[in-house]
Amino acid sequence: MPEYKAPLRDMQFVINEVLQSGALYQSLPGYEEATDDLLMAVLEEAARFVEGEVAPLYHSGDEEGCQLNDGVVTTPRGFPEAYAKYVEMGWPSLSADKNYGGQDLPNLLGIIMNELTGSANWAWGMYPGLSHGAIRTLEEHATEEQKQQYLVPLISGEWTGTMCLTEAHCGTDLGLLRTRAEPQADGSYALQGTKIFISSGDHDMAENIVHIVLARLPDSPPGSKGISLFVVPKMKVNADGSVGERNGVNCAALENKMGIKASATCVLNFDGATGYLLGEPNEGLAAMFTFMNTARIGTATQGLAHAQLSFQGSLAYAKERLQMRSISGVKNPDGDADPIIVHPDVRRMLLTQKAFAEGGRAFIYYLGQLSDIVERGDEEQKANAFDQLAFLTPIAKAFLTETGFEAASHGVQVLGGHGYIKESGMEQIVRDARIAMLYEGTTGIQAMDLIGRKVLGSGGQLLRTFTKVVHQFCQQVEDRDDMAEFCHVLSGLNQEWGELTLKIGEAAIENPDEAGAAAVDYLMYSGYIVLGYFWARMAVVALDQLQEEGDGSFYEAKIFTARFYYQRLLTRTSSLREAILTGSDNLMDLEEQAFAF
Amino acid sequence: MPEYKAPLRDMQFVINEVLQSGALYQSLPGYEEATDDLLMAVLEEAARFVEGEVAPLYHSGDEEGCQLNDGVVTTPRGFPEAYAKYVEMGWPSLSADKNYGGQDLPNLLGIIMNELTGSANWAWGMYPGLSHGAIRTLEEHATEEQKQQYLVPLISGEWTGTMCLTEAHCGTDLGLLRTRAEPQADGSYALQGTKIFISSGDHDMAENIVHIVLARLPDSPPGSKGISLFVVPKMKVNADGSVGERNGVNCAALENKMGIKASATCVLNFDGATGYLLGEPNEGLAAMFTFMNTARIGTATQGLAHAQLSFQGSLAYAKERLQMRSISGVKNPDGDADPIIVHPDVRRMLLTQKAFAEGGRAFIYYLGQLSDIVERGDEEQKANAFDQLAFLTPIAKAFLTETGFEAASHGVQVLGGHGYIKESGMEQIVRDARIAMLYEGTTGIQAMDLIGRKVLGSGGQLLRTFTKVVHQFCQQVEDRDDMAEFCHVLSGLNQEWGELTLKIGEAAIENPDEAGAAAVDYLMYSGYIVLGYFWARMAVVALDQLQEEGDGSFYEAKIFTARFYYQRLLTRTSSLREAILTGSDNLMDLEEQAFAF
Repeated sequence: MPEYKAPLRDMQFVINEVLQSGALYQSLPGYEEATDDLLMAVLEEAARFVEGEVAPLYHSGDEEGCQLNDGVVTTPRGFPEAYAKYVEMGWPSLSADKNYGGQDLPNLLGIIMNELTGSANWAWGMYPGLSHGAIRTLEEHATEEQKQQYLVPLISGEWTGTMCLTEAHCGTDLGLLRTRAEPQADGSYALQGTKIFISSGDHDMAENIVHIVLARLPDSPPGSKGISLFVVPKMKVNADGSVGERNGVNCAALENKMGIKASATCVLNFDGATGYLLGEPNEGLAAMFTFMNTARIGTATQGLAHAQLSFQGSLAYAKERLQMRSISGVKNPDGDADPIIVHPDVRRMLLTQKAFAEGGRAFIYYLGQLSDIVERGDEEQKANAFDQLAFLTPIAKAFLTETGFEAASHGVQVLGGHGYIKESGMEQIVRDARIAMLYEGTTGIQAMDLIGRKVLGSGGQLLRTFTKVVHQFCQQVEDRDDMAEFCHVLSGLNQEWGELTLKIGEAAIENPDEAGAAAVDYLMYSGYIVLGYFWARMAVVALDQLQEEGDGSFYEAKIFTARFYYQRLLTRTSSLREAILTGSDNLMDLEEQAFAF
Repeated sequence: MPEYKAPLRDMQFVINEVLQSGALYQSLPGYEEATDDLLMAVLEEAARFVEGEVAPLYHSGDEEGCQLNDGVVTTPRGFPEAYAKYVEMGWPSLSADKNYGGQDLPNLLGIIMNELTGSANWAWGMYPGLSHGAIRTLEEHATEEQKQQYLVPLISGEWTGTMCLTEAHCGTDLGLLRTRAEPQADGSYALQGTKIFISSGDHDMAENIVHIVLARLPDSPPGSKGISLFVVPKMKVNADGSVGERNGVNCAALENKMGIKASATCVLNFDGATGYLLGEPNEGLAAMFTFMNTARIGTATQGLAHAQLSFQGSLAYAKERLQMRSISGVKNPDGDADPIIVHPDVRRMLLTQKAFAEGGRAFIYYLGQLSDIVERGDEEQKANAFDQLAFLTPIAKAFLTETGFEAASHGVQVLGGHGYIKESGMEQIVRDARIAMLYEGTTGIQAMDLIGRKVLGSGGQLLRTFTKVVHQFCQQVEDRDDMAEFCHVLSGLNQEWGELTLKIGEAAIENPDEAGAAAVDYLMYSGYIVLGYFWARMAVVALDQLQEEGDGSFYEAKIFTARFYYQRLLTRTSSLREAILTGSDNLMDLEEQAFAF
């Protein structure tokens, strides 16, 4: 059964050696203290915490699940205690605003903390994870009084947060939502309606829960233009900030799910619950997107987390399990058989997991840096980082969760039949990973956001912002023979990416369904190139370090994995491009009733 | 929640119109009665049975699972009753030998029966399914007395069978197995050892269970050359054939699995159990392969079954669920939103499921016909069918289970977050489908069987036997303009297949790891071409029928799905070919200890 060990060496490689975070944060006002050494010291401490307190609850949490009895939600054994330690150690406030009790460290660090808790135990990590988005929304849209009341205890971790969007009849299409908010004489609102799929909607880990709720004001315009944002506490808050009586929001049911069973997914009834308007009336949907973008990077991290955890589990097994002889000759003459890591196909699966996990790590940390630059960079840096972040977020969310699921499935496959047994711990990762392609916007929704809103919606400008980054990198290393195997391929694909986009854009002008027909394949195609960029960046650092240092095996494995990625995974772009170019007729030219069996 | 409806129209299309089974069986001695009408009449009756009795137990079986109490295994509610009806109606004996109570109908019919029960409820279908392999093994290797004793009640369904191969330390590598069989004075053997992962190893559905067991005789040669085959009944059998006292074989534990929870996966202890040698001493492994080949076609059918069931579930949802407007204009002006089947990406997922399910059906039924020709054809037909079957079986097993799992995952995706909830019934299909790539030889094992034993081992001859079939088909339709879009691609790939194989073969002469490095991608590449052949065969029939008949929508959908397959799925061969051609260095040139994190 895999027990997560934080890959600190790889984290350090990405943070310091590849992304040179120390130097970046020196240049960002207020982040000067975030040196390479400080970042790594914090992460080492965090790694000890998650390995010791959170990882051991991964499998037991799945077995036990959450319980609802008489309206009270109970999380699995050990969950509240681990959360109490997490709060006590100050982890929730890492990258939050110091004016409200935060430690004002870079967002990057908060994102890596999410990776650490999530790799150790994704379901556990969702409780503090959901708070993060609520914190962001309150920071941006709450009044000073609301911030003192809700933001401070959220940042300290004393309370947790949720996002209440989905209703039974509307998930993606939030314009259809029906929850209503009636103004009350005291300036508050009474909320009425039912929300579903509310992660951490109720639990026993904190004394209060701050719900961020989408609802309609009376006489609001229909559709998405009539949605407002409210803050609704589980327990009413007294004037002195202490927790008062119960508010009218209750968990009516817990969902019985494929995985993440230790995460309480609630049906929440708002029955005259007292809430307070956040921001302007009827502008709730736009405000909620603040929350959603943060959440999408968080969910992208789930792909990385599951790829890493399943890699750790199957790697240990592959080195240990003796079965069959290598076809190129006996490798373990003293044993009855060779360890299965000698078999080429087992290596193919392990390297696929490793390539997605470590490539995903570089991708996610880069997004973390961008989000810090958006907040603290100069105007020009901000604008560029904002554009890159807008472009890369849907790719990260969809691509890394799809590849994380693939990696988790390889993790089972390496173990053969044993991987299918719960005891092995590997099948849980597949079940847990499956949600990531669904929540916070499905892969299809991310793909439409990418091709429609981001790429075609900007006239291609957002794509060009990033292909320019890739192009500059390729130019920097074009004279190096040892990088030719990567940069020749990467610069070719970088150009092809633009040409392919142009073709889709032209076709979509004639027929918008052309964008929809290309969307998911285009997103995956883009994802492979983005990861190719990060693997090339890692390869060049590893090549340099290998010449200078003695830590050979780490850097050799990096270069080798980069090569594997280029030769066996990046090549998937060929088929994706071919499929994209076939257009929409092969999807749309059939009457709905002919879809039958 | 999807409740399986047998796709009788499609079954009829494949059986009669595409594969012209009636005409084939007219030409095979003893199968003359198997006319198209008879085959369809049997299937209609079978469909009524599985829809009415077996499908309703699919979800409850998963919820309840199997129980082990005081050594007694209990299957979920309704399972024994449905099995009793199944036996009463005579379904077990459909394609069995009439000398032992069988109905002597074609194997094809038995395989379709497996599809029907398995699509309705895979876990339930495994109980009679396992018997099928035991029957085949006894038919081939048992003495007349053993046949009367064990085969007759297996064929009637009164008893069920198992295959006992795996031990904790050996799955793929059966040469390592340790279970021992000591000769007794009366000519029987006393078996001692522990077998794991024994499907249907114990249950409450039949009064006796016939275990086919691999074990070692004393002083047998080490490794795979010292393995013999035994028949070991759960209950000893009296001379008159009645069930006697309990034998020394017991279920020590049930595995707690990701899916197929209603299938009892047993740890079986053989504690001096009385068994009888089947066939010659030390030739058990070869004899077991009789069983394995049958089982592999059975498992291939699981891929088809789950693709079909998940397609049915997500199709219904896609037509019903209203969410967002079509980007090319409102399609459902009377509703608040359009049904999600208007969205191109939803159609892409539905068509992928449909293409794998219906293509898989043609592939499986073709294998069924081949297995009948192997038994009843003339010498030349037999030899050709035997070669095709040897070549196609590992492809069917691995490719159809991989694509079945993909289809099942799309089935969840179409439902969005709702697909992740157990209530939807869709996530169960993913969990159930995941085992199919593992048992009866993993995808990697099938791939080595294909490239190593079958293709390179025959000097390419087995591949050529099948590419000739494809080539002849392409020649037959080469003058048809309406088939050009398919046959141009197919004949190109058919040729490329041979060339690619030659390259792998040449490389493998230098370095055997080259075969292992290519294996899985080569198998998948081959699978896409094989399915392309069947889609082209279906397309030409549909084009002809569309001109002649009024049943337009069915045939239009066939042609459309063929086109979709060619343009969006068969194109995956490009990336697979590219990956194959990169060779083994990108997998093997890294020391084992550098695989780390």
